[in-house]
Amino acid sequence: MRLVHKYGGTSVGSLERIRATAQLIYADVQSGNEVAVVVSAMSGETNRLLTMAHDIDAAAPAREIDALVSTGEQVSAALLAIELNRLGIKSYSYNGRQAGFCTDASHARARIKDVKSEHLLAHMQAGEVPVVTGFQGADEQGNITTLGRGGSDTSAVALAIAVKADVCNIYTDVDGIYTTDPRIVPQAAKLESISYEEMLEFASLGAKVLQTRSVGLAMRFNMPIHLRSSFEDVAGTMVTGEDIAMERAEITGVAYNRDEAKVTIKGIPDQPGIAARILGPVADAGINVDVIVQNVSAQGFTDMTFTVPRNDYTETMALVQRLCADMKAEKVKGDDGVAKVSIIGVGMRSHAGVARKMFDVLSNENINIQMITTSEIKVTVVLDEKYVELAVRALHQAFDLDAAE
Amino acid sequence: MRLVHKYGGTSVGSLERIRATAQLIYADVQSGNEVAVVVSAMSGETNRLLTMAHDIDAAAPAREIDALVSTGEQVSAALLAIELNRLGIKSYSYNGRQAGFCTDASHARARIKDVKSEHLLAHMQAGEVPVVTGFQGADEQGNITTLGRGGSDTSAVALAIAVKADVCNIYTDVDGIYTTDPRIVPQAAKLESISYEEMLEFASLGAKVLQTRSVGLAMRFNMPIHLRSSFEDVAGTMVTGEDIAMERAEITGVAYNRDEAKVTIKGIPDQPGIAARILGPVADAGINVDVIVQNVSAQGFTDMTFTVPRNDYTETMALVQRLCADMKAEKVKGDDGVAKVSIIGVGMRSHAGVARKMFDVLSNENINIQMITTSEIKVTVVLDEKYVELAVRALHQAFDLDAAE
Repeated sequence: MRLVHKYGGTSVGSLERIRATAQLIYADVQSGNEVAVVVSAMSGETNRLLTMAHDIDAAAPAREIDALVSTGEQVSAALLAIELNRLGIKSYSYNGRQAGFCTDASHARARIKDVKSEHLLAHMQAGEVPVVTGFQGADEQGNITTLGRGGSDTSAVALAIAVKADVCNIYTDVDGIYTTDPRIVPQAAKLESISYEEMLEFASLGAKVLQTRSVGLAMRFNMPIHLRSSFEDVAGTMVTGEDIAMERAEITGVAYNRDEAKVTIKGIPDQPGIAARILGPVADAGINVDVIVQNVSAQGFTDMTFTVPRNDYTETMALVQRLCADMKAEKVKGDDGVAKVSIIGVGMRSHAGVARKMFDVLSNENINIQMITTSEIKVTVVLDEKYVELAVRALHQAFDLDAAE
Repeated sequence: MRLVHKYGGTSVGSLERIRATAQLIYADVQSGNEVAVVVSAMSGETNRLLTMAHDIDAAAPAREIDALVSTGEQVSAALLAIELNRLGIKSYSYNGRQAGFCTDASHARARIKDVKSEHLLAHMQAGEVPVVTGFQGADEQGNITTLGRGGSDTSAVALAIAVKADVCNIYTDVDGIYTTDPRIVPQAAKLESISYEEMLEFASLGAKVLQTRSVGLAMRFNMPIHLRSSFEDVAGTMVTGEDIAMERAEITGVAYNRDEAKVTIKGIPDQPGIAARILGPVADAGINVDVIVQNVSAQGFTDMTFTVPRNDYTETMALVQRLCADMKAEKVKGDDGVAKVSIIGVGMRSHAGVARKMFDVLSNENINIQMITTSEIKVTVVLDEKYVELAVRALHQAFDLDAAE
């Protein structure tokens, strides 16, 4: 098999962890696999570098920040290559430019345009292991770029696509995707497999195990991702495009996100384009609006509610209050104590049926639903944060997700 | 003026030092100069990285060590560029490959083949400051190479030659070259200027302020080096090819090196090629033989004495004892308590006269000379280490180097 392995910061965070990680790679190469590796910076290193830069200038140029932080992965890649050589496997470290990661020139959030990795493939086929720095590349002028936080997952998937790997193994400190958070529901079960679409929903709901972007890229090229633990050698969760709905329960899992806030604007004169006049400036400020609900209230007036990440609450409120004064809206209300709970599943045959069951379950628990939104494979409700655990447990049980004892 | 500034590890060793260094550069740019900067890694950083590598494998591949340690300069270059931008000067950091440093593929001791720095020159002419990582480049395949310890001086001189700078300013923690070590002779005077040849002799005698290789490169392209303090804005010592002998004393300075050892082989059968049969294997072992003296002793036999760095004494003795057993030499003697003292000067008109005066001075102090060697601009004696201070003081005074009080 041709494999790309990705290891995060904790997997290369100390010399002991580097040795353990190298052993995993060694075993795979000894078994006759062709292997390339993508690594993050040693845990803590990126923050150490950023702190130095920000101590000099909080508004340091993005180009220099990229040049600075890209050294973190270069260090871990070289150290891992040294250990692999010590074990008797020929191994070479490559930074983003050397590995052929061509990106656009958007520093700190560059997009990969191409991965020219034929030279890495030649090493893999010779039983040698290229160790590639995640999270980085170079633009056409050779300037160092980075893909943004968590970009190493995307690097790994992009490399796997470039070398036509059979699978992209993403090693992390969790051992897979669960039907819900085991800290809330001890009966939560590890999913053997999950579709790209479901994984995107889980990821966007704050399951921080895989970067959304990397899942989207894998989906586009149909590259299977095996999300697994770097601490124990057990199967994790396979993220694929294969039809896995056959014998599945209609719901795959229950996800939640506590870090939400809600902004409501009451009594806006109801005119075409009103949503854009409010949400446009919010998006321009870099604030990620999620659930949006709009209702007609009194004659000629409308109400609008939307959620934003809790970190952006204060900024959003200030911005919306200015906009509403201009538009002569009645009033603006906010609540920074809400949360989202979603049920997710490609097996969701009937949205209406699933949604009604969800509302019944929550109603039985006397949980008030503040907002509702649905997508093809997801139903999300916004509720008071204090109900999160109760809602997740009730839904997990009601949709038959509790593992058999 | 077009200037290349080189700053060592202490000049970028902390955020405070980076700010101070940036101020110096800022002042030079404000005065209308075109400036490029070469930096070393923050002091201690190269050792930190090497320790990690050696903790994994003491015999780590040179390619990976180069990839690893090259990050040290990338960090300091980016941080300095950030501070220069904060001060309002457009500045960009460049690693060795980005700056156009093309080297051969000899990792850890790469030689510069070419510096393609037209893009840096364009920045300089626009009033912008490229900050280039010292000590590194890339080979034809794009592998990262390093020039060896202290290679940043060589990087700076090479860049100065490439951009046709008027002078290469090497900032360090000493403020220039003195007629001798001021710790031994308080009357030692700072030299306003010194020739490349003299600087080479001082450098090879352990005046660790400038890498020998950088001086050789500057001499070949006639690039003036201004060796000066990064802690105070005073003129240092100019290293140039100009004729500076006009009104000079015949001797420029007195240098010494304590870290010497001496090996004597007695009663070797005197045959052609005997020196090569002994010194060849010593050189092959990477040991740097310096002063060599050979004498005929009894009929058909010869004696040979040579010096080596004290660190290599034990290895040299073991090696020479094996060789001499093969060659049936009479015996091998060693002494790891010797030192070299040299008088240096391009103004040295008559070697015989200068040498005789040197021997008289030492004789008057009852210092026994063990070995003598001369070059065009230097006379060196090997003596018991305990006489070093006495010899240096006596010679400094006798050759009229003591500064006027």
